[in-house]
Amino acid sequence: MTSDDNLYLLHPHSVVGRPTPPVVIDRGQGARVWDVEGTAYIDGTCGLWQCAVGHGRAELAAVAAEQMQRLEFYTSFWDFSNEPSIRLAARLVELAPAGLGKVFFTNGGSEGTETAIKLARLARHATGEPDRTVVLSRTGAYHGVSGTAMAATGIERLKDGFGPQAVDFVHLSTPHGPTHGPAATDKLLVELEEAIETIGAHRITAMIGEPVLGVGGSVPPPEGYWPGVQAILRRHGILLILDETITAFGRTGHWFAAERFGVQPDLIITAKALSSGYVPMGAVLIGDQVIDMLDGTTFFHGFTYNGHPVGAAVALANLDIIEREGLLQRATVLGDRLLDGLVPLADLPHVREVRGCGLMIGITLESNDAPDVVARCRADGVIARGAANTIVLSPPLVITEPEVDTVCEVISRHVRRLGS
Amino acid sequence: MTSDDNLYLLHPHSVVGRPTPPVVIDRGQGARVWDVEGTAYIDGTCGLWQCAVGHGRAELAAVAAEQMQRLEFYTSFWDFSNEPSIRLAARLVELAPAGLGKVFFTNGGSEGTETAIKLARLARHATGEPDRTVVLSRTGAYHGVSGTAMAATGIERLKDGFGPQAVDFVHLSTPHGPTHGPAATDKLLVELEEAIETIGAHRITAMIGEPVLGVGGSVPPPEGYWPGVQAILRRHGILLILDETITAFGRTGHWFAAERFGVQPDLIITAKALSSGYVPMGAVLIGDQVIDMLDGTTFFHGFTYNGHPVGAAVALANLDIIEREGLLQRATVLGDRLLDGLVPLADLPHVREVRGCGLMIGITLESNDAPDVVARCRADGVIARGAANTIVLSPPLVITEPEVDTVCEVISRHVRRLGS
Repeated sequence: MTSDDNLYLLHPHSVVGRPTPPVVIDRGQGARVWDVEGTAYIDGTCGLWQCAVGHGRAELAAVAAEQMQRLEFYTSFWDFSNEPSIRLAARLVELAPAGLGKVFFTNGGSEGTETAIKLARLARHATGEPDRTVVLSRTGAYHGVSGTAMAATGIERLKDGFGPQAVDFVHLSTPHGPTHGPAATDKLLVELEEAIETIGAHRITAMIGEPVLGVGGSVPPPEGYWPGVQAILRRHGILLILDETITAFGRTGHWFAAERFGVQPDLIITAKALSSGYVPMGAVLIGDQVIDMLDGTTFFHGFTYNGHPVGAAVALANLDIIEREGLLQRATVLGDRLLDGLVPLADLPHVREVRGCGLMIGITLESNDAPDVVARCRADGVIARGAANTIVLSPPLVITEPEVDTVCEVISRHVRRLGS
Repeated sequence: MTSDDNLYLLHPHSVVGRPTPPVVIDRGQGARVWDVEGTAYIDGTCGLWQCAVGHGRAELAAVAAEQMQRLEFYTSFWDFSNEPSIRLAARLVELAPAGLGKVFFTNGGSEGTETAIKLARLARHATGEPDRTVVLSRTGAYHGVSGTAMAATGIERLKDGFGPQAVDFVHLSTPHGPTHGPAATDKLLVELEEAIETIGAHRITAMIGEPVLGVGGSVPPPEGYWPGVQAILRRHGILLILDETITAFGRTGHWFAAERFGVQPDLIITAKALSSGYVPMGAVLIGDQVIDMLDGTTFFHGFTYNGHPVGAAVALANLDIIEREGLLQRATVLGDRLLDGLVPLADLPHVREVRGCGLMIGITLESNDAPDVVARCRADGVIARGAANTIVLSPPLVITEPEVDTVCEVISRHVRRLGS
């Protein structure tokens, strides 16, 4: 397996021609995974934030098999449709914040960003403002890696060497963590006002943002940030696209982080926990205002697997599990427990910040030792994510109290060890 | 269902605010599908070309359920891996034309185009030619609808109103059908040489093309086109990206259309028939030269569901079915039968061309009556695709001889009717 991996696969974010022995994950159950050697790990990241309901759910496998055997897929382009996707759309509108009445399906976050930005631009085109094409976003934000999504993303190493970026994207400052308080919010809002002034509201169709920065380090915004941003955008008639690829369906303790932060976005991008990753699935929720602006316009856009019946059937069952097992509340309770267990690290001189929001936890070190810490944790059976100076945790929402305590113990040990 | 569809769903390529009663597909078997009313259709398009092995394969549902229960998904980013994706990568390299030794997984064609173009540009950056970013493609070609893929696509209505397009894409003429002969090829090759001369080979990283135009109307190239293009590109050190999203895994009677047309591309984009659409899955095959150019470079790119174990397990079983049931040969035999049955239409004064390549058939009318013909065929139980003056057929490779004959009869009847 190892040699075939190295021979035939190019992994995302790997060095070409320098393969390393892979960790070949073989099976999973709840918040645990095992590799092919039989080594067990507590899954502190659920891979890439996608797994809300935990690994190895036989119930979802049964739902997938039943739908797959009946109708594995038929296109949802034009006037074709299927029952699971219709039912999922109805369910999403029911769960979503008020005023988000239509659903457009995708396979994941990047496709969601592409779709939302195309909708926001086409809406201006349809209402006589074809030059209102600029999209505001934030340095440090991650919105995907396809062309338009990559341009919206505010992380330079994801763009280097890939040629000219798409135009009409403007990146403002990163909203630094919750410990920075209302003064930090004021600064960000003044900057936003000034940017709109400089560019001209008549040129700006939308602002896109993550409610909590994900790849950027699980960074919740400073107090009052989102209502402040919303008020400014509304005053200028600029649409708000909330990228909830990571946060929707429970991670912050709510169906949508929009509720938690008190914002009413015009478009919400979702993916990941919508299906817990059992089948690739995403959805863009579209606000009534955008639909009104587009009235009578053909939306010449769609990815092949729009409204995939198997993905939709699995997503419906996945949302049922989240509801039935009270996983929103679990995310809050377990997230608090995880944060409480790690917050003492913030007193260490070599730790800059420990922060969290539901089951999204970020630790910033003073040095770029996160990869080293993460490697040691993995050797001790805990999977975390680390890049440069930042460690990120985002376990499945079904992680148990003892597993949370083990994660805290192992992470703390290796972070403390850095200072010794 | 109809009212919920209209209330909650925005379908790709539909008019916003003007929903029509949907055809809600409920189940499928082989080359047939049934809607929720119980109406049966012969699936003359397999939705969007994705379904090689036919609908309702219990074997694939069983494989999916088994893998989903064991390990539904874990990331393949960095050094994580899983057995099904390793085995699929090995199988793809074994099936692929010589010299394509590495695999990068995606969820579909648009993601494949994004990936291939990023690789082609990064390879230049890595070898000291960072300004070699231009990508040549063809008017009429379809390469997807995310930012970069949309810029490569050569169909204007898919770009209108979506704001500024990505730069450094140049579109050459459409390669018109096989009936145009070697003179058409010569013209296209002269144009390509001139374009390279004008732009400068030092600015052009790659040319991307569909072996047979798909969305553009199932248009195979004129004789000698691909070897001619390849020779010119090689002379100028320009990479060739073959977009086999539609053609790979049997549709033209070969595993890859590259074999049929005698080209050795540097990158091949695949999706659709890789998994027959049972689970979204795609793969980019990467040539040894590209890998050599990138040696030592980190590829900071990847979509969440890269190497999805369920998608990979299903794809492996799907490729087994294609092999076991001799579907490559079936595509040739049935494609010839379908074309033979429709070719008499070319004698009608209101029909411009009837063409085909394996199980990809295109009919061009003299008028824009294709949607009307397609609507009448659907009412008679045959699903075809029609836009403007072009009717396209691409049934599952398991369509039977009597089903082919019914398709020919129904299509012929409604095309002939136009002239009366």
